[in-house]
Amino acid sequence: MSKIPYKTYLSESEMPTKWYNVRADMKNKPAPLLNPGTLQPMTAQELSAVFCDELIKQELDNDTPFIDIPEEICDFYKMYRPSPLVRAYCLEKALDTPAKIYYKFEGNNTSGSHKLNSAIAQAYYAKKQGLKGVTTETGAGQWGTALSMACAYLGLDCKVYMVKVSYEQKPFRREVMRTYGASVTPSPSETTNVGKKILAEHPGTTGSLGCAISEAVEAATTTEGYRYVLGSVLNQVVLHQSIIGLESKLAFDKIGEKPDVIIGCAGGGSNLGGLIAPFMGEKLRGEADYRIVAVEPASCPSFTRGKFAYDFCDTGMVCPLAKMYTLGSGFIPSPNHAGGLRYHGMSSILSQLYHDGLMEAASVDQTSVFAAAQQFARVEGILPAPESSHAIRVAIDEALKCKETGEEKTIFFGLTGTGYFDMVAYQKYNDGEMSDYIPTDEDLAVGFAGLPKVDK
Amino acid sequence: MSKIPYKTYLSESEMPTKWYNVRADMKNKPAPLLNPGTLQPMTAQELSAVFCDELIKQELDNDTPFIDIPEEICDFYKMYRPSPLVRAYCLEKALDTPAKIYYKFEGNNTSGSHKLNSAIAQAYYAKKQGLKGVTTETGAGQWGTALSMACAYLGLDCKVYMVKVSYEQKPFRREVMRTYGASVTPSPSETTNVGKKILAEHPGTTGSLGCAISEAVEAATTTEGYRYVLGSVLNQVVLHQSIIGLESKLAFDKIGEKPDVIIGCAGGGSNLGGLIAPFMGEKLRGEADYRIVAVEPASCPSFTRGKFAYDFCDTGMVCPLAKMYTLGSGFIPSPNHAGGLRYHGMSSILSQLYHDGLMEAASVDQTSVFAAAQQFARVEGILPAPESSHAIRVAIDEALKCKETGEEKTIFFGLTGTGYFDMVAYQKYNDGEMSDYIPTDEDLAVGFAGLPKVDK
Repeated sequence: MSKIPYKTYLSESEMPTKWYNVRADMKNKPAPLLNPGTLQPMTAQELSAVFCDELIKQELDNDTPFIDIPEEICDFYKMYRPSPLVRAYCLEKALDTPAKIYYKFEGNNTSGSHKLNSAIAQAYYAKKQGLKGVTTETGAGQWGTALSMACAYLGLDCKVYMVKVSYEQKPFRREVMRTYGASVTPSPSETTNVGKKILAEHPGTTGSLGCAISEAVEAATTTEGYRYVLGSVLNQVVLHQSIIGLESKLAFDKIGEKPDVIIGCAGGGSNLGGLIAPFMGEKLRGEADYRIVAVEPASCPSFTRGKFAYDFCDTGMVCPLAKMYTLGSGFIPSPNHAGGLRYHGMSSILSQLYHDGLMEAASVDQTSVFAAAQQFARVEGILPAPESSHAIRVAIDEALKCKETGEEKTIFFGLTGTGYFDMVAYQKYNDGEMSDYIPTDEDLAVGFAGLPKVDK
Repeated sequence: MSKIPYKTYLSESEMPTKWYNVRADMKNKPAPLLNPGTLQPMTAQELSAVFCDELIKQELDNDTPFIDIPEEICDFYKMYRPSPLVRAYCLEKALDTPAKIYYKFEGNNTSGSHKLNSAIAQAYYAKKQGLKGVTTETGAGQWGTALSMACAYLGLDCKVYMVKVSYEQKPFRREVMRTYGASVTPSPSETTNVGKKILAEHPGTTGSLGCAISEAVEAATTTEGYRYVLGSVLNQVVLHQSIIGLESKLAFDKIGEKPDVIIGCAGGGSNLGGLIAPFMGEKLRGEADYRIVAVEPASCPSFTRGKFAYDFCDTGMVCPLAKMYTLGSGFIPSPNHAGGLRYHGMSSILSQLYHDGLMEAASVDQTSVFAAAQQFARVEGILPAPESSHAIRVAIDEALKCKETGEEKTIFFGLTGTGYFDMVAYQKYNDGEMSDYIPTDEDLAVGFAGLPKVDK
């Protein structure tokens, strides 16, 4: 048999034309979003002030296993997809491991990450509904960049509320979005009532994701022809991101391989949910078994130390409640945390799967994450995003275990993106100035104390 | 016939295993490098204090048409190559042109450009010669990044002298190089005699590429086990970069297409020389005809307004003389020039081909270059490097001409890299603060006045 190539690409005709909805195969469905006022499940009509109609359908659909990808989205995907399934020959050699290591690389597009897979879908449905534009928030900027790209392509307005501290510290991310025609507003701002209120109460604030969400939602609901879009956590996002796992599965089939362990980083769950979707589907249907590992920062440990409970999706508490593993919407990771994945909660789908014992979770310290990132960059030639590097850390650790045991496991991880706009964090690491932080139980208690009382 | 795909990849088994040396097919060979002292052609022995032995062979070889790519380099190429030949369907649609537009995209690797193709080759031969490390200079940082990556992979020391103003203004480029283990020194520095001398004479200087070259050469020639490497201009670089054109040609053959016009940006000539090599070979052998266009900035117009003469390769005048189209080694582009391609001279190979009428040259203003970059980014989803955008500008202009005439030309250009580290320039453009500059004849006369008197 000929050697497995470094990179396996599907041909364009082999690319998936349907997203896979893992909820259809889940025995225990993810819990519904609740109206924060009535504590009753959100109806499509209640959601329609905020979200596009077709996306609401996808959000609420727990039954349809496959959903057609519209042709226009398939065409857009062809601009930057299929992404390669890479055999990490050089990393294997450097680790001297008998394990076979594969990764799916989603960073070869200008947004720098997998976020574009859902951004184009959400922008497409907004355009199709005849809307004028969309609003969103962005922290590190990957989602904002992806949405700006999608909107530029479709001729849709894009208003991004960017956490003020990021706006000031990451001017280059901001300029990429502006190059794609988005308007980028530092949050909190004077352009919304909630922004004005926060500025009046905390004049010197550098903002937070929670505040930016509140501003983006207000802007969407008070501007004719706009809706709000979100890059993670939601069911619809996991649906769109299933393209990652579907392509991976087809590529593995093509080379006649099958992963034993599947590893992905987890912040809100957009990447991990998409990466594992079809593999989890096989597991749920009893057709195959895989070990699946979610990796999160020790400084923001939703899965490993959070509670499975209904909570607000945003710190401003304007959004519906979701049942998920959460640290409480008031939890904010330590300022020394540079490695992304700062969200206090987790996708309801992944939370349910984890709760049902269908996947594991691990937490890792950020200095060990950057050590893995550097090692990976030097042998595999890709500078990984800090987020992605959480998965690299655990993949390397698994491969080193195989070295000890002699097992020839097939390890597969998601490499979600590149770190070109994260060099401040790399610099800290290069200068030996990066530290670790593990919240104490007392630290976590503060977030838990703010959990809403919901009897479900 | 099925639709031509958006992206055409070669399989790994189809990838070229030999570089193509266009000099072998040139009737008029490029003029030899001259010893600046004796004005006689540099011998291999004279060059060996500065360059690796195998690279000197390649530099001086005007006759061998194909040179084997060592297996280790082929393996490294497989980490990030083949690069895709992309059909720009979205750009065609946006321009409403009957022309077919293709580009070869070299930016999907962490160095962000084609520079890695030669960096790995030069680092490999240095390693094979048993050297401890290499030195080089970098301005914008693409070459320094590429060399750092190659050296990290091979376990070779890498000392980069980075023009001080870039070192300070582009800290992220610097951090990428440090992440790859390179030592990065702002130039001029106290680490070399020439650096000390310049600092003593001009205490506040922010450095220049010429000074950084001088420091890198001094560091290489005075440190046991080191040699100097260069990312453009040299014949060996054009040889290594032929991988771009070879892959392109194979991909065109695969889809049954043939370009009418080939367009590339030109600074020192590394990308353009590689892109056109096999096509120029066919042209030289009378097997096919192509229109070939070099695009340069109006503010640094070596081809379109320079002289074909022997000149120093560096402003410090420590390197050999090369016969080339040049603005004089003392020429420095206006400080308002943000778009790369600042080198005063041009590859001797390309200079000879241009002199012999085998290719054309065009110069473009930087605001029009950034307008093309923005338009391209918004429809093709790739944020291009300013350098690459020179080629985009002319490709778009050619496609718009086709729209007028109704011609269905096949336009092919080289997209050398991404602009993620060039956002300061994009910001200037986004803010409407970018201006154009065309040197007057008087401006150019200053550079020409410094040309050495060589009777060849």
